[in-house]
Amino acid sequence: MTRVGIVGATGYTGSELLRLLARHPDVDVRVVTSRTEAGKLVSDLFPALRGFQDQCFTEPQTAALTECEVVFFAAPNGTAMQQVPALLDAGIRIIDLSADFRLQDAEEWGRWYGQAHSAANLLDQAVYGLPELNRDAIVNARLVANPGCYPTAILLGLLPLLEAGCIDTGSIIADAKSGVSGAGRKAEINLLLAENAESFRAYAVAGHRHLPEISQVLNSIAGEKISLTFVPHLLPIIRGIHATMYARLNQLTDLQALFEERYRNEYFVDVLPEGSQPETRSVRSSNFCRIAVHRPSDGDTVVVLSVIDNLVKGAAGQAIQNMNLMFGLDEKAGLDFPALMP
Amino acid sequence: MTRVGIVGATGYTGSELLRLLARHPDVDVRVVTSRTEAGKLVSDLFPALRGFQDQCFTEPQTAALTECEVVFFAAPNGTAMQQVPALLDAGIRIIDLSADFRLQDAEEWGRWYGQAHSAANLLDQAVYGLPELNRDAIVNARLVANPGCYPTAILLGLLPLLEAGCIDTGSIIADAKSGVSGAGRKAEINLLLAENAESFRAYAVAGHRHLPEISQVLNSIAGEKISLTFVPHLLPIIRGIHATMYARLNQLTDLQALFEERYRNEYFVDVLPEGSQPETRSVRSSNFCRIAVHRPSDGDTVVVLSVIDNLVKGAAGQAIQNMNLMFGLDEKAGLDFPALMP
Amino acid sequence: MTRVGIVGATGYTGSELLRLLARHPDVDVRVVTSRTEAGKLVSDLFPALRGFQDQCFTEPQTAALTECEVVFFAAPNGTAMQQVPALLDAGIRIIDLSADFRLQDAEEWGRWYGQAHSAANLLDQAVYGLPELNRDAIVNARLVANPGCYPTAILLGLLPLLEAGCIDTGSIIADAKSGVSGAGRKAEINLLLAENAESFRAYAVAGHRHLPEISQVLNSIAGEKISLTFVPHLLPIIRGIHATMYARLNQLTDLQALFEERYRNEYFVDVLPEGSQPETRSVRSSNFCRIAVHRPSDGDTVVVLSVIDNLVKGAAGQAIQNMNLMFGLDEKAGLDFPALMP
Amino acid sequence: MTRVGIVGATGYTGSELLRLLARHPDVDVRVVTSRTEAGKLVSDLFPALRGFQDQCFTEPQTAALTECEVVFFAAPNGTAMQQVPALLDAGIRIIDLSADFRLQDAEEWGRWYGQAHSAANLLDQAVYGLPELNRDAIVNARLVANPGCYPTAILLGLLPLLEAGCIDTGSIIADAKSGVSGAGRKAEINLLLAENAESFRAYAVAGHRHLPEISQVLNSIAGEKISLTFVPHLLPIIRGIHATMYARLNQLTDLQALFEERYRNEYFVDVLPEGSQPETRSVRSSNFCRIAVHRPSDGDTVVVLSVIDNLVKGAAGQAIQNMNLMFGLDEKAGLDFPALMP
Repeated sequence: MTRVGIVGATGYTGSELLRLLARHPDVDVRVVTSRTEAGKLVSDLFPALRGFQDQCFTEPQTAALTECEVVFFAAPNGTAMQQVPALLDAGIRIIDLSADFRLQDAEEWGRWYGQAHSAANLLDQAVYGLPELNRDAIVNARLVANPGCYPTAILLGLLPLLEAGCIDTGSIIADAKSGVSGAGRKAEINLLLAENAESFRAYAVAGHRHLPEISQVLNSIAGEKISLTFVPHLLPIIRGIHATMYARLNQLTDLQALFEERYRNEYFVDVLPEGSQPETRSVRSSNFCRIAVHRPSDGDTVVVLSVIDNLVKGAAGQAIQNMNLMFGLDEKAGLDFPALMP
Repeated sequence: MTRVGIVGATGYTGSELLRLLARHPDVDVRVVTSRTEAGKLVSDLFPALRGFQDQCFTEPQTAALTECEVVFFAAPNGTAMQQVPALLDAGIRIIDLSADFRLQDAEEWGRWYGQAHSAANLLDQAVYGLPELNRDAIVNARLVANPGCYPTAILLGLLPLLEAGCIDTGSIIADAKSGVSGAGRKAEINLLLAENAESFRAYAVAGHRHLPEISQVLNSIAGEKISLTFVPHLLPIIRGIHATMYARLNQLTDLQALFEERYRNEYFVDVLPEGSQPETRSVRSSNFCRIAVHRPSDGDTVVVLSVIDNLVKGAAGQAIQNMNLMFGLDEKAGLDFPALMP
Repeated sequence: MTRVGIVGATGYTGSELLRLLARHPDVDVRVVTSRTEAGKLVSDLFPALRGFQDQCFTEPQTAALTECEVVFFAAPNGTAMQQVPALLDAGIRIIDLSADFRLQDAEEWGRWYGQAHSAANLLDQAVYGLPELNRDAIVNARLVANPGCYPTAILLGLLPLLEAGCIDTGSIIADAKSGVSGAGRKAEINLLLAENAESFRAYAVAGHRHLPEISQVLNSIAGEKISLTFVPHLLPIIRGIHATMYARLNQLTDLQALFEERYRNEYFVDVLPEGSQPETRSVRSSNFCRIAVHRPSDGDTVVVLSVIDNLVKGAAGQAIQNMNLMFGLDEKAGLDFPALMP
Repeated sequence: MTRVGIVGATGYTGSELLRLLARHPDVDVRVVTSRTEAGKLVSDLFPALRGFQDQCFTEPQTAALTECEVVFFAAPNGTAMQQVPALLDAGIRIIDLSADFRLQDAEEWGRWYGQAHSAANLLDQAVYGLPELNRDAIVNARLVANPGCYPTAILLGLLPLLEAGCIDTGSIIADAKSGVSGAGRKAEINLLLAENAESFRAYAVAGHRHLPEISQVLNSIAGEKISLTFVPHLLPIIRGIHATMYARLNQLTDLQALFEERYRNEYFVDVLPEGSQPETRSVRSSNFCRIAVHRPSDGDTVVVLSVIDNLVKGAAGQAIQNMNLMFGLDEKAGLDFPALMP
């Protein structure tokens, strides 16, 4: 049994880790920390976990975490980078669900996250935890930077096109829509039901923190600086991301075959039959990404539709997939169940 | 591996059986029938099941079902009673999720369901499949009438009070609220999102088909004719029933202790700590019923709050719980996971 | 043109006053205050009001309010009682949408609202602003206590029965369900969309602040102390209250005629035809209350269904109805439009 | 008072016409037809209209309509073209909310709508009823083709850019999202709440009927054949369209000034301050379109955000705006109120 700790488990990614790990066959959740709720039963905060996670939140001291083999950081940005160096020194492997280790350039990180990076020296050993791109590196990683939710949906949709070199990299568009749980479990008026139900809006059009993360990966695949316009929108639902991507084809390719071939051996990426349009509910609660690729009116624009559950493949599920790889477990362990529909 | 068939699997209870049985460790789903979708892949209708249920719907012929050990009927009311006699004769055990075998009085059934009962002779051998009430009978049953969703939530909330004889049976009130999936997967204007979102209403105040079902059980427990006012309401959510019950206490009792004691050994009934108020999402996708009991202002009115997922404990999950009992499996098999929250 | 001020206009009742008064033919909104948003354009906070309310929020100084003829208090409980005495002295009439002047007993008020009442001497001149009950007194009132949202829906449903003396006053039940805007525009985790969508729950079962308010009115009508069990629930919708009331009949009455007669001259109370079940959306955005009365199975339990928009008839609309009465305007002025459906 | 008839008033655009016309100061609704509901009270179907529209539905005979000055067709596609010729001959002016007269090319219409056009000779006299584009022609029109909901939102967002000639017409993208009422009041499983709540999906990626309508107008403005990729998506809300448009700038322009100037005199088009992101709820129930224009990262991609209420500015409200123009009324009559928010 792999001994696991979770730092910052009172948010949605933390509680999702607790939900999924509750049924993972090879995991023992040893430590669940929360600065604000220490001493309280986990299941008092999350009654769905009554009978499944009956421990208490504890203070996030490093000492208590050293009995773990792997620690998940589900804390706000800027937390992991404080605590990770000591844990790595203690031989503990880290999967960070925050953004602290996702960008390789500490200065750029500082600009987007509004603070100086306190562990810049670790950035080059952090592995970007998208198994479909970096599986081998993840297996041996000591520090995994778990991808953001938007980046996961968008990258999985664009990888086949960029790797095949069949699109114009100068005008890629990602129109993305996310459920509100992506914004976290925070007391903010603009996340209230009364402010969001029966409404829809774009946000952060001027620039969202996931833009440099996506661009960094796309640049690396393309071997050149790509140009991406990324507009996130807020859906009045709890879970689900739908990314609609547009790019210009620079050569004719059998797009359906390209996508099917790219993901033939990827259990968690499901390329739908030609002409399909995935619904976010078809992946709700599950670790799957479903993708469809279209070329409307047989023109030169390719449209990719990609859906994930932002809390699972976009956060906690992918983190567990990474853990499975790091510890030699079945990559599907704890994640092999269908989505909740309806 | 228990060989299973599902008749009428295109509705919500049918697709929920398929979702849950996909991960049941001891079950082999052999036959999935649908009169309207025969020949089509199950996963074309329910894309969440891609990779988990890859068979096709077949015609609901009895012959094909005889290779099963147990057949679930998830078809509309009036279907099971036509086909069950032949299947029972062939030695196949039946769990009927429709209402066909829930009432013991064929005439009353006819009045509420608008047709004559075609298998009235089987009514007295049908076991009402509420494990928390009838576990022993279910173990040996050949024909289980799986309870309705409202009756499950309401009965579990009232059983302790009636068994203890501590309430006035002359004025019990059940104000129940259900998500729309309880009405089925039917093309009806009054079930559209545009007609139900951002709204709430009562329905069937003059009399709902679940009233005689609930009363029949309550009468039997009380040993007298109880008087129940049952008002169902439609919630603008997909899954979830919340029943709020009111009764007059005829003696002072430690209500919290009464409920805890009654359900001490019932894995799927969770009596919450004193002062709690269960949310439907705390049981979403799971087979649990969560219950809280209150005595406001220390008066003589008891208020019971009971929540279930109408498609799980209120239908498919309870059916599987019954199957587990009938076939000597772990009662929790395939059902032992926490609710999806948020 | 009646000169109007609004104190505390950044919440939902305040913004609803602004929306409704924008089209009131006889009103001039002079002052709109907010301690937190002073100096900001009203329409920056509420973009739906661009072009309709183009003033800025100002500080809530009493001086600025004295140019008004009437001041609406839409501020949190405990605010109006501080400022009202000086305004009354200055000859300004007050409509308080908070709870400060709803209870006649200052001690009871203190118990429920957790603070001492600072203007107890004004309680006996405050008129409870339910026009269908107190129209004459409202006309001449200097200080109107605008009813709570639950009390409005529940009282309108129970008045005919209590006035006719046809129910047992010892066991009245009000099972009420409200949209989340009733909780106000507050940064609280338990009001987030991610915490409430796709879920439903009861709250405050042990005692809600609207209980003494409802009881006070019912006692007064009945001429005795009635016993009311009031259980509020939270609906995952923005607007709308549905109250389902249960009482025992102590005599046979033509209930439909009783209700129709009681409200024959009440424009804003619509008694639906026999057998109806009102939807909250049928009153959304409007000042109407729709009511249906049932006697299930021709038994001795009467069931009343009453719906309002909690922000209109349950708050801002009723306040304007009161203002219309106080200033000799058409009672329907500014309020005479149908609900938004769908 | 203008005498008005409505053909096919049982759908959402018809009921919305009834809601809005109920408070229009210069209109007398004489005839409200429905083939299926003839003889029934309008307010039995739409209880929100009780007291406001108390007539019955009648059969849609031409004879009864000739007492009207203007007839709105809110019927399914293919209905108006059968009846309009006779009504025009009788001197009655027509506003058709269906698609029958939107395309100028009868053959293209036939391809997209799956039937031959029966009144092709009228296509060249039909005026496309977008007041912000065709006001003068509308004033004198006998037959107005009221624009589709998507085209309204998208065209208002693109007009300034195309008229200014500042974008590349070869790669325009419109990623549009609509509430479910846009699909009509139809008994279809894929419109159920249980199928759409908590989910989001694209549809008709291969080609939506609004594509030729939008392209026809854009071609005409650009004076060349533009290339538009239009992907509609279904939002789990009732009302609201959000169109996110992307185009490549071929010259530097002050985009904010361009938009403000273009719509300076358009009451119903509100260009938001720089940096804004409109919410659909900010126009809910109202006839406004709110628009924001962005140039992310100061690059060469322009992003336009445009929101309308699909049933108002996208259908019934715009139809009334057209009627106002045709009959010399105040263009704002009956439409001059703020949106419902929250």
